[in-house]
Amino acid sequence: MSDAYDNLCVVLVATRNPVNLGAAARALGNFGFTRLRVVNPYEVAFREARSAVGAAALLANAEEYVTVAAAVADCALVVGTTAARHRELQHPLRRLEQGARLIRKQLTSGRVALLFGSEKVGLSNQDLSHCNWLMRIPTCEKNLSMNLGQAVAVCLYELVRVGKATRSPGKAQRATAAEVERITAVLLDALCASGYVKPRAAAATEEKLRRLLCRLDLGATDAEVLLGMLRQIVWKLRQ
Amino acid sequence: MSDAYDNLCVVLVATRNPVNLGAAARALGNFGFTRLRVVNPYEVAFREARSAVGAAALLANAEEYVTVAAAVADCALVVGTTAARHRELQHPLRRLEQGARLIRKQLTSGRVALLFGSEKVGLSNQDLSHCNWLMRIPTCEKNLSMNLGQAVAVCLYELVRVGKATRSPGKAQRATAAEVERITAVLLDALCASGYVKPRAAAATEEKLRRLLCRLDLGATDAEVLLGMLRQIVWKLRQ
Repeated sequence: MSDAYDNLCVVLVATRNPVNLGAAARALGNFGFTRLRVVNPYEVAFREARSAVGAAALLANAEEYVTVAAAVADCALVVGTTAARHRELQHPLRRLEQGARLIRKQLTSGRVALLFGSEKVGLSNQDLSHCNWLMRIPTCEKNLSMNLGQAVAVCLYELVRVGKATRSPGKAQRATAAEVERITAVLLDALCASGYVKPRAAAATEEKLRRLLCRLDLGATDAEVLLGMLRQIVWKLRQ
Repeated sequence: MSDAYDNLCVVLVATRNPVNLGAAARALGNFGFTRLRVVNPYEVAFREARSAVGAAALLANAEEYVTVAAAVADCALVVGTTAARHRELQHPLRRLEQGARLIRKQLTSGRVALLFGSEKVGLSNQDLSHCNWLMRIPTCEKNLSMNLGQAVAVCLYELVRVGKATRSPGKAQRATAAEVERITAVLLDALCASGYVKPRAAAATEEKLRRLLCRLDLGATDAEVLLGMLRQIVWKLRQ
């Protein structure tokens, strides 16, 4: 399943501590994964981590992005990790074991992004709006929040625990995050043109639409069809 | 199984790095374990770790021993962890998943010690001589050796993975077929009004739309939102 392993992108968002960046990279190496992406890391953390023991090659090849949207654009499934403490979740929340099963399945046919937020605050609502669903490690009530490097290690362990993923070639290919993003933009356009959304509320609505569209779990073909429909509708509305 | 959790003693032997001591303590807290024992830690490491975030109580209550023998004296089962790299093993070696099953069983009736060696050299042959058997995390050949804090987290996760009753996070209610049907009708209306669908092809398109919407597996709330958007769009198109 080495191809499948290459399909997993571990995405660290706004990581502060170089020790955690190094630890995350080491965990990737331990469990046979290769793709590390960082979004907007604290510059110092990233520089210092590049010299971390046992993870040098992986860190040197880490891809740096300015936005979550760019970091997950080529991924057909985007999964956020959360301790699910304070917030009212707008997404389906899956336990690690169940979530890992779904991720393994998807990895056989396309890229998956697994997002980890910053040490202090986790993933923001804006970050979460890019996720299809969320996953949590079954920690206990009193101490929900894990150390970042340890959380990465536990998630990757669970992904490889069962061993080789079974290939299911019949399954339809999923839309990438970039395609979902295009649909979000055109739908927002249609809603503005029709008066459903007031221009001032466009930003808040965009986030809601993205979440809704992520939940739909679109296939690649369906995404294309939807995009065509919406473009025609917008064209007509703008006449 | 909270009694059983009290029966697990995580024993850190000759740990050097305070960050790892703190991380190990934090992992115990995350997964509901309480007994941390340290054998002969580097004095400085132990003092510094005592101030580690999120693990203060556990570290304060950690029991300190001079020998492995003393640290495991009250345990009915002693399990060593190893990356199994260099040495000729004299013990049975079990994969984490299999080993955790045996440990869980033993925990219901008596104490179990789970030993982790120092960052540099792991457990010595002397340490291993106290073990009933050894356990390894299934890391890959090229990067066998895990960070200590991460190894502790992964082992403890595997111990609780099966044990805890799965709490399903309140699965969102699905849209009914009737709701999907309403969306199909309004979407078809929008597509006709925008010129995407020619009136003659409406019947064939309706079927395609229904199939597409069924594939989306809509939640009840999302269905309602979509319906509202589409109605507004149709209203505007028909003006």
